[in-house]
Order: sequence, then C-alpha cells, then structure tokens
Amino acid sequence: MNNFVYHNPAKILFGKGVEKDAAREIRACGGTRVLLVYGGGSIKRSGLYDTLTDSLKAEGLPFWELPGVQPNPRLTPVKEGIRLCRENGIDFLLAAGGGSAIDTAKGIAVGVPYNGDVWDFYERKVKAEKALPVGAVLTIPAAGSETSDSSVLTKEEGLRKLGCGSPVMIPRFAIMNPELTCTLPAYQTACGASDILAHLMERYFTQVDHVDFTDRLLEASMRTILDYAPLALAHPEDYDIRAEIMWAGTIAHNNLLDTGRVGDWGSHRIEHELSAIYDIAHGAGLAVVFPAWMKYVWRDGPDRFVQFAARVFGVEIAHGNKERAVEAAIARLEQFYRSLGLPTRLSEAGIPDDRLREMAQKCTLPGPQGNFKKLYEEDVYNIYCLAK
Amino acid sequence: MNNFVYHNPAKILFGKGVEKDAAREIRACGGTRVLLVYGGGSIKRSGLYDTLTDSLKAEGLPFWELPGVQPNPRLTPVKEGIRLCRENGIDFLLAAGGGSAIDTAKGIAVGVPYNGDVWDFYERKVKAEKALPVGAVLTIPAAGSETSDSSVLTKEEGLRKLGCGSPVMIPRFAIMNPELTCTLPAYQTACGASDILAHLMERYFTQVDHVDFTDRLLEASMRTILDYAPLALAHPEDYDIRAEIMWAGTIAHNNLLDTGRVGDWGSHRIEHELSAIYDIAHGAGLAVVFPAWMKYVWRDGPDRFVQFAARVFGVEIAHGNKERAVEAAIARLEQFYRSLGLPTRLSEAGIPDDRLREMAQKCTLPGPQGNFKKLYEEDVYNIYCLAK
Repeated sequence: MNNFVYHNPAKILFGKGVEKDAAREIRACGGTRVLLVYGGGSIKRSGLYDTLTDSLKAEGLPFWELPGVQPNPRLTPVKEGIRLCRENGIDFLLAAGGGSAIDTAKGIAVGVPYNGDVWDFYERKVKAEKALPVGAVLTIPAAGSETSDSSVLTKEEGLRKLGCGSPVMIPRFAIMNPELTCTLPAYQTACGASDILAHLMERYFTQVDHVDFTDRLLEASMRTILDYAPLALAHPEDYDIRAEIMWAGTIAHNNLLDTGRVGDWGSHRIEHELSAIYDIAHGAGLAVVFPAWMKYVWRDGPDRFVQFAARVFGVEIAHGNKERAVEAAIARLEQFYRSLGLPTRLSEAGIPDDRLREMAQKCTLPGPQGNFKKLYEEDVYNIYCLAK
Repeated sequence: MNNFVYHNPAKILFGKGVEKDAAREIRACGGTRVLLVYGGGSIKRSGLYDTLTDSLKAEGLPFWELPGVQPNPRLTPVKEGIRLCRENGIDFLLAAGGGSAIDTAKGIAVGVPYNGDVWDFYERKVKAEKALPVGAVLTIPAAGSETSDSSVLTKEEGLRKLGCGSPVMIPRFAIMNPELTCTLPAYQTACGASDILAHLMERYFTQVDHVDFTDRLLEASMRTILDYAPLALAHPEDYDIRAEIMWAGTIAHNNLLDTGRVGDWGSHRIEHELSAIYDIAHGAGLAVVFPAWMKYVWRDGPDRFVQFAARVFGVEIAHGNKERAVEAAIARLEQFYRSLGLPTRLSEAGIPDDRLREMAQKCTLPGPQGNFKKLYEEDVYNIYCLAK
C-alpha cells in the first residue's frame, strides 16, 4: 500500500426532497450572490428549476443564470460564466444537472480568481489554488463530479478534451435526491452506469500490491452497479434502485477507493479522444474502449485480472487457467454493456476507423498514458483497432 | 434507504513517516498553543513522543502535556485538561495513542468553551456546538475515534460509561502510520480487531431495507478484518497487514458505512456496563456480548442474519434452513474470536455473574437500547445470561 492523503470535505445531503435545502446550504457556506449553472430543459420539466430558484428567493440570495451547458461540456460557456461572475460580484456557483453542469461550474470557479486563460489549468500549465465555492444538485449519477476534485472540458478549437484536478475544486456540498433521476432516459441511465463502473475499474487495475481492503470495497461497488443498472432499466421509477446507483456513483469517484493505490486512467484518456471528435456519450465510449484495453493489457498483471474475474463476475475457472478466466470475464463485461443497450465496438457506436491514428497521436501528445501498462501511440492505436 | 447527511471533513495522512507532519498540520489548522494528550510510556518507547515534540519545537509551537490517560478513559483527566487549556490559552489538542487518548482530547475540546460541567454532554443534557480543534496520531487501530464524531468516557463516581457525539468533535486530521502499530501486543491487536468488527456489525444489523450498497461495503470491510486479524498475530511486524487493518478501522467508524441505514448499537451499550465495572478491554467485552446478542435477536430479522452468514462467513446452508445457517455463522464468529485469544463468555473474561441484574438496570436507565430489536432491562439481562 502506498502512502496517501485523503481529504474530502464535501457535505452530502441525500434523499427525498433534499434539494429544498440548496439555498440554506449556500448561505451556510457564506455565499451571497449565486450563478445557477445548468443544461437544457430537463431541470425545468422536472420542477427542479422552480424548487431551486424558489429556495434562492426565499433565502434572499440574488442569482444569475448560465443555462445551455451541453454534454461533453465546452470551454466557451466557462468563459461566459467567468465574465458573468466578475461583472456581477458572484461568489457562489450552484450547478444543477450531471457532470457537464458541475464540471462547467468548477471551471468557472477556478477561472474567476485567475488572471490568465482558464484553459491553462486544463493544459496543466498551472495548478488551481483558489476557487469560488461550488455546490452541486445532481440529476445524473455518472461522472462523480459532485464530490470529486476534477473537471473535464473540451476546447472547441482543435477539439481537445482535457481534465484538471485540484482539492479547491471539490464542491462544498452535493445535494442528491434519487427521485430526480427516475425520469432519466434508458440510454442516459446506461451511460451513467458505464461511467461509474469505469471509475471503479480504472482504480481497480493497479500495479500496487497489498491493497486488499480497497480491492474489496471496489469489488463491492462494481457488483452493486452490475446488479442494479439492469434493474434501473427495467424499473426506471423505483426509488430504491436509483438510490443504490446514485450513492455508489459518488463513492466510486470521491478518491476514497483509490487510497493507497495508483489507478490506471488510460481508458478514460483513450475514450476522451472519441467523445471529443464524435461527441458520443462518455459512458458509451467507455463501453467500447474498456474491453479492448483489457484484451491488450491483461498479460501485464494476470493475477489481478483473474481476481477481477472471480470476485466481480464469479468466474470459477481453475486458478491455473488464467487466459480463459480473463477471456470469460471480458465476455461477461461485454454482455453487461450490451444488456444495457450500449455499444462495445466502434462500429456499433457509428465511429468510422479512418481517424484512429490521429486519435492515438492526440491521446499520447502529453506523453504515454495509463499506469497499469504505459501506453504509447502504437499501443493506443492497437487498442482502437481491437475496438473496431 | 433512509435520507441522510454525510460530512466527514477529517484529513487523513496515512503511511510511513507521516507523523513527522503533525506540527505542520496543526499550524495549517490555525493552532498556536498545543496540549499533547497521551497514555503511558508506549509512545516514549516507540520514539513517537520524540518525533512529535521535535516537530512541535521545529514549528515553534509551544506545548503542554497531559500524560497518563488510561484505557477506558475517565472523566477526571478531562477536567484536568480543561483546566490546563484555560490557564494556558491552549487552542489545539493533539492526541497520540488509541481511542482513550483521542476520546479524552475530544472531551477536553468540547469542555473548554462550555460554561457548565463537561459531563452534561455525555449525559446528553446539552449538545456540543463548539469545540477546540483536535488532531489525532493513531497508534492503536480499534476505536475509530481518529475520524469519528464521538467520545466515550467513564465517570468514576458510579462507574457510568457514556458516549456523546457531535460533528464538532471530528478531528481536523488523523495521522496514521501502520509502522506505529507493529509493536502492539497480541492481545491489544486482537481487541482492536474485535472493536473494528463490532463497529461494522453494529451498522450491518439494521431493520432498514434497500441498503445493498452499504451492505456490500460493510461485508467487504468485515472480511478484511476476518482475514487480516489472525495474520497480524502471526506476523506482527508486517507493515502491509497492519496497514489493511488500520485503514479498515477508520472506514468502519467514520459514518460512511451507516449512510442511509440505522445501526443497532445495543451490544456496545451492553458491553459498556462490563468495561465500566470490570475494566476489561472493550474489544474483549464485545467478543463476549456480540454472540449472545445475536442468539437473542436473530429471529427479529432472520434474512439479514442469513445474508451475513452467506456473504461474510461463506455459509452455504440451503436458504430455507435459516436457523442452522445463523447458528453456523455465530459459531464461526466465536471461532474467530477464540483464534485471536479473546473470551466469548463472561466466565472466560473473569467476570462473575452476581451483578448481571444491576448492569441490565444501568444499561437501560436512559430507556431501551438497540435498534434492530428494542432491548428492555429483561432483554439485556437475558443477553448477559446467554453470555455467562
């Protein structure tokens, strides 16, 4: 086990009706002027918009709005938000939605007190050390951004999708009402589950030894998603099913489950090139990339893959027969994705194979990717080819 | 799943050598004058005392000392600590040791800014809303006090052992170096493991439905303790074994694993009467009480006990045969305790049976205990009798 620091001070309010407390929590954090960041019309249709704005008015908190945040969020709205905050003396960001709204708010949060271009943080030219406080009202369990220390944005020019992280980006509070997720369409539910599972697998596939406790917590979390994601599609309005997925989605990405270990994260970077160019859902891209990544890298740590096969998928092929056990586990993972209606090949996702080399180049531009196995351009290209 | 609020802002520094950072962390928390709270000579023998005091001197932080805290910590040293803090303008408490040192520091922390008797908090006459900041340097993984919101003390007069809890009691930081636990004697190691397992079982045995994700996290944590506690006795100086237990001990009691559920806590209260009068180790007392509690209450929720049997102990007796599955699980639990050299009966712990009625009365003085099954005086008495 590696040395580690774990510190996640986000306050979580979870359950029915908790969104009513948003304005009170903002006030408790010292916020006085609020920017409400959200996406399309879904928070208006669900009534969440009215609940939040009523709560802000009742608490006497003036607010401004930044609507229209897109999936795979872009840099331009972040710059617009920074301008709005500076012009209006806004001191608190309230994001309502999924990872896109929250990541946008986090970008604005670090951008406001910074004198340069906010993209510098994403290009890792500077490390964010100051930020406006952010609160999140989560409606899509997926990205884990509601308590994570990171944000991922795409710069329109060149379609570069990059992430940045800093402890100052951790939201002060996350408001999580599973009822708000009961109206999520099946495909978004599936993509969210895939994203959560990927966060767990990225952490699981490590080369660090002696991490049995966090292994077991990760396995427990993965099995929760494997059990409950198909149930959420079958019973979309079942509160208890949505609650299991929503809480697991947060724990999957709040850094608790990578304490003492080094996650891989290669698949995320490989996927980011797909969703940057083709604008597919991140969770769908991960369902395409992860099985291919596994096929390519498992020989660099077969025991870990056999453990994954046995404990997560119940594969009980004799311990000596590692290749077949791993093959069986990857097949089960692909079955899981397909059962949710997700693609497991580029072709199924409608992605042609004429830009694989370009994506492999862009992906490895900052250097080799992944920690379980260091992936150079040729490796990433091979993984895209395995995913064709 | 119940609605919940989860908020644990304790910063954890975990790994080799992290105790060197104690003074820097105090400074970062705004501490300027420190009370070092500890027990006997073990932190002097291990060199921890020198490391901490050197670090305080290097950081230029004046400090005072409150040594001599006993296991099953008493109220008198807390009052002495409050006096020391007030007389010397101390604004930070650094506890070095196990739950006793940390619980004592927490008692002092809430006592200093309070105008009445600090025991009021433990008798739940008032709720603690202000406290001096506390930091913990953990040397015994057991109580989970290093990031918990609670403290348990015994008032000498009448030997009443009571706990109190408040978010203001959560330590600002916990410094956890598994190396410091490698010299723990076997019996203390065993008692610590028993305490950790009890924290997990108290949370596991709930009547709240639809808590599958936290069930699985709890099962993962219990299996970690069941696997690693015997290994720690066999290989006391193995860092990796100690690290698994130490990290699991914190997660077992930082309130994450009871999110959305209501734990039982009857066994803890029943045990407190034992350790208050007979001054036995809390973990040993829990090994006596828990099997008896299980035998007494399982019929109030047999499915949960069968799940415990199957998932924690691998008992695969046919699902219809609940009574035998539960019996097998309790037998395995008793085997586990005995394998660690712990008693599973009052007689083995050297506790006579002439005060069982008195203890049952004291235990239920504030009202019935436990949530899985409400236990009145007669129930608690029956559980003591089952443990004879």
